[in-house]
Amino acid sequence: MKVIVTSGGTSEAIDSVRKITNQSTGTLGKIIAEQLLEAGYLVTLVTTKNAVKPVRHINLEIKLIEATADLAQVLEVEVPKHDAIVHAMAVSDYQPVVMLPIEDFKSKLSAMEDLQLLSNQDKKVSSKAETQVIVLKKTPKLISKIKAWQPEILLIGFKLLVGVSDEALISAAKKSLIDNQADFIFANDLENITADTHAGWLVGRNSLEKVTTREAIGQLIVSKIKQVSEEN
Amino acid sequence: MKVIVTSGGTSEAIDSVRKITNQSTGTLGKIIAEQLLEAGYLVTLVTTKNAVKPVRHINLEIKLIEATADLAQVLEVEVPKHDAIVHAMAVSDYQPVVMLPIEDFKSKLSAMEDLQLLSNQDKKVSSKAETQVIVLKKTPKLISKIKAWQPEILLIGFKLLVGVSDEALISAAKKSLIDNQADFIFANDLENITADTHAGWLVGRNSLEKVTTREAIGQLIVSKIKQVSEEN
Repeated sequence: MKVIVTSGGTSEAIDSVRKITNQSTGTLGKIIAEQLLEAGYLVTLVTTKNAVKPVRHINLEIKLIEATADLAQVLEVEVPKHDAIVHAMAVSDYQPVVMLPIEDFKSKLSAMEDLQLLSNQDKKVSSKAETQVIVLKKTPKLISKIKAWQPEILLIGFKLLVGVSDEALISAAKKSLIDNQADFIFANDLENITADTHAGWLVGRNSLEKVTTREAIGQLIVSKIKQVSEEN
Repeated sequence: MKVIVTSGGTSEAIDSVRKITNQSTGTLGKIIAEQLLEAGYLVTLVTTKNAVKPVRHINLEIKLIEATADLAQVLEVEVPKHDAIVHAMAVSDYQPVVMLPIEDFKSKLSAMEDLQLLSNQDKKVSSKAETQVIVLKKTPKLISKIKAWQPEILLIGFKLLVGVSDEALISAAKKSLIDNQADFIFANDLENITADTHAGWLVGRNSLEKVTTREAIGQLIVSKIKQVSEEN
């Protein structure tokens, strides 16, 4: 049985120097990958240069990506070859279209220009203007494509919110479960994540389980994958 | 003689999850710090969690920072205690003020609201809107404050541009030399930086020297610091 783990955070170029990224370190994905390897699975870890990584293992293959577009390319090829995916990577939901001084932005707005068609004219945007604006457009939601690429894959997704109630968090996870045809969504709140603890709920179609450490998250996820592999 | 080396790239929070950063890996700063340690200097390396770092050394102290504001705090304390600074860190020249859907942004513009006074209302900006806007304001130019904090310090700064002519690059370095009362500016173009090579000019008040590798940049910079320490 072959499992994909995604970990770390994507980054999206603003110009050739600047980029937008997120706080993800890859620690949870690393632990999940290690536990899967220990349980005997073949693991393909899709991650980033900066993310922390498991030690080398004969059953571990690592694929490095940067932007959401790279991730889409890799997953479209890899998903059909695997039996389960633990999609822990923090994927940018927006990508920069253009960065420009606010005065230029205002004149493009008044001229009714299509902002989505703009792009940076210089390789490194000049840093003269006191105030600048970055226009962002939504990235495609990759998690929603996984079951289309491989309907039989066991899909475990993640939902991260910040400073919300347990009800709001679980409800967002249930919505993601349905919208993305996922089998499980791990719902977590950044305010409940520290160096030592990582609290959250694994939300299934008819199940709800709470855990409080990265090791316990990994064990729970490995047990769900084991159940499926034993059924098949 | 005590030397500060700054390396890596600062990152600026957009909200509690997203951030803006840059492509800097800290490789050049690492090599310069190692060469200074080998030459017998005490080195304070100011860098980031993600940057590559020298191996431990009894004369090396590492201080980790994230945002430009952290860097300012550390340098204001450290600069007066040191004799030279090699300021190789890629410092964000803009920091996010607010991220919001473009329609909200347009109404704030028409209402003539002061965009610099806005801030994110949610800890993680919602990702519903198709197009969003990030408003950015300039960060204070730290390199310009170094000589005010310590007039006697030897200041070696960096100027990175992308895809410009040699003339434009050297001219930008000369301007930075004067504007920031620097002793040397290392002028480099991202398009001349690869895994193996790193070309650029060390521009002084009356000197211009070209080098093409990270090791040669380090040797040249160490030689300038040696000259000063031998004169004193």
